[in-house]
Amino acid sequence: MTKPEKKLQELKTRLLEVGDLNHINALLGWDQATYMPPGGAPARGRQSALLARMAQEKFVDKKIGKLLDDLRPYEESLPYDSDDASLIRVTRREYERALKVPPKFIGELNEHAAKSYQEWTEAHPANDFSRVRGNLEKTLDLSRQLADFFPGYEHIADPLIDFADYGMKASSVRALFAELREQLVPIVRAITSQPPADNSVLHKHYPEANQLAFSAEVVKQLGYDFNRGRIDKTHHPFMTKFSLGDVRITTRVKENDFGDCLFSNMHEAGHAMYEQGIDMSYEGLPLGGGTSAGVHESQSRLWENIVGRSRGFWEYMYPKLQAKFPEQLKDVSLDTFYAAINKVEKSLIRTDADEVTYNLHVMLRFDFELQLLEGTLSIRDLPEAWHERFEQDFGIVPPDDRDGVLQDVHWYGGIIGGAFQGYTLGNILSAQFYEAALKAHPSIPDEMKEGRFGTLHGWLRENIYRHGSKYTAPEIIERASGSPLTIAPYIRYLKTKYGALYAL
Amino acid sequence: MTKPEKKLQELKTRLLEVGDLNHINALLGWDQATYMPPGGAPARGRQSALLARMAQEKFVDKKIGKLLDDLRPYEESLPYDSDDASLIRVTRREYERALKVPPKFIGELNEHAAKSYQEWTEAHPANDFSRVRGNLEKTLDLSRQLADFFPGYEHIADPLIDFADYGMKASSVRALFAELREQLVPIVRAITSQPPADNSVLHKHYPEANQLAFSAEVVKQLGYDFNRGRIDKTHHPFMTKFSLGDVRITTRVKENDFGDCLFSNMHEAGHAMYEQGIDMSYEGLPLGGGTSAGVHESQSRLWENIVGRSRGFWEYMYPKLQAKFPEQLKDVSLDTFYAAINKVEKSLIRTDADEVTYNLHVMLRFDFELQLLEGTLSIRDLPEAWHERFEQDFGIVPPDDRDGVLQDVHWYGGIIGGAFQGYTLGNILSAQFYEAALKAHPSIPDEMKEGRFGTLHGWLRENIYRHGSKYTAPEIIERASGSPLTIAPYIRYLKTKYGALYAL
Repeated sequence: MTKPEKKLQELKTRLLEVGDLNHINALLGWDQATYMPPGGAPARGRQSALLARMAQEKFVDKKIGKLLDDLRPYEESLPYDSDDASLIRVTRREYERALKVPPKFIGELNEHAAKSYQEWTEAHPANDFSRVRGNLEKTLDLSRQLADFFPGYEHIADPLIDFADYGMKASSVRALFAELREQLVPIVRAITSQPPADNSVLHKHYPEANQLAFSAEVVKQLGYDFNRGRIDKTHHPFMTKFSLGDVRITTRVKENDFGDCLFSNMHEAGHAMYEQGIDMSYEGLPLGGGTSAGVHESQSRLWENIVGRSRGFWEYMYPKLQAKFPEQLKDVSLDTFYAAINKVEKSLIRTDADEVTYNLHVMLRFDFELQLLEGTLSIRDLPEAWHERFEQDFGIVPPDDRDGVLQDVHWYGGIIGGAFQGYTLGNILSAQFYEAALKAHPSIPDEMKEGRFGTLHGWLRENIYRHGSKYTAPEIIERASGSPLTIAPYIRYLKTKYGALYAL
Repeated sequence: MTKPEKKLQELKTRLLEVGDLNHINALLGWDQATYMPPGGAPARGRQSALLARMAQEKFVDKKIGKLLDDLRPYEESLPYDSDDASLIRVTRREYERALKVPPKFIGELNEHAAKSYQEWTEAHPANDFSRVRGNLEKTLDLSRQLADFFPGYEHIADPLIDFADYGMKASSVRALFAELREQLVPIVRAITSQPPADNSVLHKHYPEANQLAFSAEVVKQLGYDFNRGRIDKTHHPFMTKFSLGDVRITTRVKENDFGDCLFSNMHEAGHAMYEQGIDMSYEGLPLGGGTSAGVHESQSRLWENIVGRSRGFWEYMYPKLQAKFPEQLKDVSLDTFYAAINKVEKSLIRTDADEVTYNLHVMLRFDFELQLLEGTLSIRDLPEAWHERFEQDFGIVPPDDRDGVLQDVHWYGGIIGGAFQGYTLGNILSAQFYEAALKAHPSIPDEMKEGRFGTLHGWLRENIYRHGSKYTAPEIIERASGSPLTIAPYIRYLKTKYGALYAL
């Protein structure tokens, strides 16, 4: 090996240890959210904090800084696109960011998050905001401290948004959301002024075991690799990864709500297929994960909605679903079912929301994050503010906090700030990427009607998945779709699909 | 705080990190043996090795040695029995042992064990010894290297035996086993010269879900705390611990063999109740685990056999079992069932063996460990040697390696040496401890007939469990039973129970 190659090898060895510690920590989190008995919680929080601190300590080691410095000439001698140059570039960006956050703080944040998450799992079903208020105040305080490690921001949320969606900040997200809102609100108004679609077919009794079996078959067919993954039950579904060879999804089942388990599984499988599709040589390194929250979400929403709620998909899948649930569905037409799974209505729960109103849920949360961080809204006043804003945007008032401010895990198991904008970025991008895939392969919709998803999956793997974090979100968007982020394809998609469904 | 108290606090903080890293590693092992998809194996081995190495590095840190030196006067000022003195004493013993093993070696050993275990899970059902032979040769080599870090031994197995059963060595185990064998062989001969008991009732069809539910109810009633534990399915059942608040057991189910799941669960629950019963102030410290393999096994065997295969226990439990499996058992008498679960026969599988022949299985493995380590037997010749020795001891020849040399996980997921003697030490001690408990509480057998296990559980917790590793095995045996290890109670127990069953 030449001298730079040796140094690169040493860098990789060190980075792999950091990656492994973080992946081990992810296993602790998965276990806590799936199987851990209640008595395990105190030690689990401590153990997770220890791993987070050790990973951070190993990552900010001065020797990594020295290696990055030493490798700069080598990096500059390579093309921008080369794996080695990309690894050095991306590592340097993360290293410089990490240097600003003390390891002790990371440990404290993780320990608090584990405790807060555990208490939320009990407070949420009990509809007891008072139980989590103290935790949430500490979370807000920690979130502000975290942002303040990155002085010079325009808005205090900017560093937190940048962590999740590199290149975005409060002002750019606000501008994008305003543009989208202007287009969305008239569509929502036009649809909700019509009689609501009938989705009662989804609320018959669908036994758990068959829902789990069917949704597992579906995600397998989409391309989720069970040899490198599995599905378990949890409180609030998520995707997690312990290596490129072990990318798991979690789910939940409501026997009187058919969509919940299936669409959640397609959503999480979308995230998981992104991770499973990353170049195996990036294993455990800073390149070896999806590039941003928004791009990640584009993959979950693409498979969940653009594929999973399309008429073509169900032309193929509906007879199979009828065979699995003959009693419930034998007399229900495909059109009735298709209208049911695409019912647009103003509803309480973000994760259950239809594609059209979904972004209004996100905008509400995003605005609250900014206000909480600014200090123009207090945690104490949050439940009431939620009720007021919800009534304003949706015309309905949540009957309680369980289906209001307690519904999403994010603030209870992480930080406040940067947690939600990625969902709407993902919606926008899902349509932008899908349009690009169709342009390259016009046969995709017809293939879907035959249960073939390989062309689409292959295009996504080739243009997005395999690159991991090699390119930033703006770069991958430009490379894959040929243009920067734009809402036009998403608006076209919504108008075409819902224009037909609701005869707009 | 005084100066020694501050130093002790610093020692505890450091030890807790070591304990937490080891407990996290146990979670990786549990996941690998229960839920991990095959694709996770390569990274899992690497991650487990990393944790083992980091734990070892943190433990052998010179600062711990310095703290132990500094704390010596404080230790000497305290009674031997005090928690602080015991923590310093036990930590010093482990520290001095750990100093002798390089962290890099521990990492290598753990990585190899994870890989070897994974391949065994496939080679075992496939009856393919050739697939694991290379791994096993490396395991033997690593085991010898490990022993050689402790020069001055009488027999190369001595250090490995001492790790598991402090105070024992090859010669003392050999002498004990010879004494036991002399008593056992005539009992086995007397029983097996009679017509075999009929245990066909156990081989009816017992559906998995009901077996799992029944055995969970049983261990709960014995005192296994599900708030701090759970049961999952695996290949080869084991108990594992991630903190004193999270002590899990694993099981397997054979639908045509009723005993397998239930008795395995009682066995593992015995191990788990020991760990769950440890003083909570020992959490994550060197005192916070069972004191030796033999004492640990005494608890699993006590609950599995002395309680779980006793007539009194089934006087209470059998009507409940009949209610769970009415079709299978409504016409089967308690006496028939009791004789079936205590059938003595020469059989192939250690874990399925009855109480009388069980120790012959252990002696065979123990002798092979010594020969392999000595170099008087090669891995290549092991399957054949197994067949020969088995025929000699049991009068039957295993039809294949699956039910021969491949049957036990130990050598495939750990080291060769010290792995098996603890099982027979446990059998011996289970009777010795039970006799002591009966002496203190003669009401225990009558309570058991009413499904009450609290007095026995309480005596064990008070005299054994709560102390964790505060006392060595010889100390705890003496303290709890009033005498050193002796085979007399075990022989009395076997002669009384099987004398009645087989009219000897």
